[in-house]
Amino acid sequence: MTLNNQLIKEMKQRVYEANLQLPDLELVKLTWGNVSEVNRELGVIVIKPSGVDYKEMTADQMVVTDLDGKLLEKESLKPSSDLPTHVVLYREMPEISAVVHTHSTNSVMWAQAGRDLPAYGTTHADTFYGNVPCTRQLTDKEVEEAYEENTGNVIVETFKERNLSPNEVPAVLVYGHGPFTWGATPKKAVENSLILDEVCTMARETEMVNAHISTIPQYLLDKHYFRKHGAGAYYGQN
Amino acid sequence: MTLNNQLIKEMKQRVYEANLQLPDLELVKLTWGNVSEVNRELGVIVIKPSGVDYKEMTADQMVVTDLDGKLLEKESLKPSSDLPTHVVLYREMPEISAVVHTHSTNSVMWAQAGRDLPAYGTTHADTFYGNVPCTRQLTDKEVEEAYEENTGNVIVETFKERNLSPNEVPAVLVYGHGPFTWGATPKKAVENSLILDEVCTMARETEMVNAHISTIPQYLLDKHYFRKHGAGAYYGQN
Amino acid sequence: MTLNNQLIKEMKQRVYEANLQLPDLELVKLTWGNVSEVNRELGVIVIKPSGVDYKEMTADQMVVTDLDGKLLEKESLKPSSDLPTHVVLYREMPEISAVVHTHSTNSVMWAQAGRDLPAYGTTHADTFYGNVPCTRQLTDKEVEEAYEENTGNVIVETFKERNLSPNEVPAVLVYGHGPFTWGATPKKAVENSLILDEVCTMARETEMVNAHISTIPQYLLDKHYFRKHGAGAYYGQN
Amino acid sequence: MTLNNQLIKEMKQRVYEANLQLPDLELVKLTWGNVSEVNRELGVIVIKPSGVDYKEMTADQMVVTDLDGKLLEKESLKPSSDLPTHVVLYREMPEISAVVHTHSTNSVMWAQAGRDLPAYGTTHADTFYGNVPCTRQLTDKEVEEAYEENTGNVIVETFKERNLSPNEVPAVLVYGHGPFTWGATPKKAVENSLILDEVCTMARETEMVNAHISTIPQYLLDKHYFRKHGAGAYYGQN
Repeated sequence: MTLNNQLIKEMKQRVYEANLQLPDLELVKLTWGNVSEVNRELGVIVIKPSGVDYKEMTADQMVVTDLDGKLLEKESLKPSSDLPTHVVLYREMPEISAVVHTHSTNSVMWAQAGRDLPAYGTTHADTFYGNVPCTRQLTDKEVEEAYEENTGNVIVETFKERNLSPNEVPAVLVYGHGPFTWGATPKKAVENSLILDEVCTMARETEMVNAHISTIPQYLLDKHYFRKHGAGAYYGQN
Repeated sequence: MTLNNQLIKEMKQRVYEANLQLPDLELVKLTWGNVSEVNRELGVIVIKPSGVDYKEMTADQMVVTDLDGKLLEKESLKPSSDLPTHVVLYREMPEISAVVHTHSTNSVMWAQAGRDLPAYGTTHADTFYGNVPCTRQLTDKEVEEAYEENTGNVIVETFKERNLSPNEVPAVLVYGHGPFTWGATPKKAVENSLILDEVCTMARETEMVNAHISTIPQYLLDKHYFRKHGAGAYYGQN
Repeated sequence: MTLNNQLIKEMKQRVYEANLQLPDLELVKLTWGNVSEVNRELGVIVIKPSGVDYKEMTADQMVVTDLDGKLLEKESLKPSSDLPTHVVLYREMPEISAVVHTHSTNSVMWAQAGRDLPAYGTTHADTFYGNVPCTRQLTDKEVEEAYEENTGNVIVETFKERNLSPNEVPAVLVYGHGPFTWGATPKKAVENSLILDEVCTMARETEMVNAHISTIPQYLLDKHYFRKHGAGAYYGQN
Repeated sequence: MTLNNQLIKEMKQRVYEANLQLPDLELVKLTWGNVSEVNRELGVIVIKPSGVDYKEMTADQMVVTDLDGKLLEKESLKPSSDLPTHVVLYREMPEISAVVHTHSTNSVMWAQAGRDLPAYGTTHADTFYGNVPCTRQLTDKEVEEAYEENTGNVIVETFKERNLSPNEVPAVLVYGHGPFTWGATPKKAVENSLILDEVCTMARETEMVNAHISTIPQYLLDKHYFRKHGAGAYYGQN
């Protein structure tokens, strides 16, 4: 197989820059996060190498795999151990092109609490069309047999069971673990991680100030989400 | 109509600088906030363009409209989608000259909780003469027909029903959404956003430490507010 | 009266630098804090001018008064409006030489909650020999007649009634207002403000994690306090 | 006794750099933390001097003692007052080579609350194989007779009673005081302090969002811990 070098070089650069954003935006400590991008026509995924310091890695070190997660370059570092989760998401969610996983403080807190993130306000509704779901807990068997792959599977199961669109809700909380977000580009997927963490903070504090608060009504959710997304959007310069 | 170019240039500069303060003071993430200024004699409002990055915009790109929010410059970016709210506030609150809207974390939290912000201490009283009100929730019809305009209307309704002075309480929490603040200048309106967010934090934590605490007595509210405002003020160098 | 220029110049420099520490240590926003120093032999107090930005002021602008708070320099800015509180503290607490007042977030929160700060751990005990007291609320009459002076009086009253030593507990929370701290030098008094704010945070969170926690036993309080203070101290290089 | 100068110089440099990380990672304020390293073959411990500012100290000033904590260099500063705790840990836990003590906000909060830190998620499990224990409170007699040494003893007692491995749980919370962590190198021990503080934050917030949450199941704890540690580890590049 001959790789399209220029396109892959550009993917590596985007994935590299998006990974660097994670510590810059204070979404990760140490090496606790990874970003990937897929190009389904090329049959290629590019992802951060496992356990490598953000400050020390180079764009060239980003790991290139096929759509099953098999290494495509001879002198490759090992990919992020979460790669099998990314592979499942890319296979089952054809509308997404980039995936981010972090252990950002406030998103992890909700994932550990095992609760869906309620849509308490317009900040949430601007990006997430409804509650951000929390998956069920993985079973003993799922963890032992193929942990990272089954993490992807339980995310997909959650979206299917609840009839959610990955485009409309570009984030999930994995029970007891943490957030995954996605988007059309690595930059956009990172932005969704940032927003998720912020609305996780806001939701927690909202409940502290008013333990009996409800989610916003559907018409306000509709207004804010569709003000920014879809054919009728009028936010921004386009 | 011939615009007074020098005055508008100065307005643009002030509005630009005040918008830049929002990320610098950590009151906004991404593009989540906007500042405007009005000059009623000139018949002009200047406001941030919609969805443009603070770091990438220029003073010249600030959008100039008339007092109804209609664009006045040929080559203009689209104004902030919240412009109709600003227009209503300028029309109904003749004492204010600048408006700020943000999604700052702690103010949003109170707005999402749907509660007035209680005046729990002198930090609050130095700027806000009494509780900062939270509006009622907009109705389905209000959101669908003219969301941004009706956001302005419900703020005005709140101040009229409670007989509040926009000068004495230069801030409001919009239910399920977030804060608006105002002032005599863009800089002062941003300062009020900063103070609002800080007293929102303090109030939340105060309730955590003492769930049965009351607001400060009227005489202490009077003392601190009038120490800084009005004819008898003696804080500062003037 | 002839002022000892060299000594006052040095006081101004120390007071100036200590005031600059307040925003650097994130203990104040805007102009919400002031530091002063007294020299009782010279009969002089030096304090921050009122409402002046930390970033714009100069050492020379620090305000010089006598021990009753009367201005001693011809071309003087107005002193901090809290000066009368400082004057009372210097008069009634002969063992202190510098005073700091801030509206730091976590200390204000406890002051607004109207509770003494419990000595929950050794971080507290290293600096404060027992709970940090919260004053009673000032009466209507006290506020109207001489607010700032009576703020000083209620602090003194609190320490006398509880038989506390200003040296052993170099801080107080004024009900509904905020913290005052003191020390042998402006730098040390600022350090005590920093420590107070930190232990206020820790105490609040401690109660969240364990609602039934008690203060540390007297023998541990003794051990940590006297490890750092008094004749038997063995912490540090002296 | 002739010291191996080159090896000790290298130890001093590592201990110095690890101490500097403490304020850089916001794990300490003022001088509230210390790092040490042991070389049992050389019979040497190197530790931060007591009460010296991180910014002002030099690598050469790190204090060199024998395995009982006795000074080995003529012109030595006084060692950290917590040295006797480090000495006990090195004697009783042969698998560790570096120790860190801090008063980091969130770890202290759990120590003050007197509770074990529950393993609520995979962020915790990646580093700590099970709950991080909180010691019992020291008795009056233990504090008075040999406070710092008995702090070490109660840590050792806690690990023995619960049959915990210092390698698998490289951290402890000392009741009413704060955290100690350790590791194979000073850098690794500091990293464990950072992680402990982060999971302390996450755990507190998790309980706020869901008061009835349980720790993660053993099979998920196993998966994450052994994904990063031991013979079957597959995280990172080794």
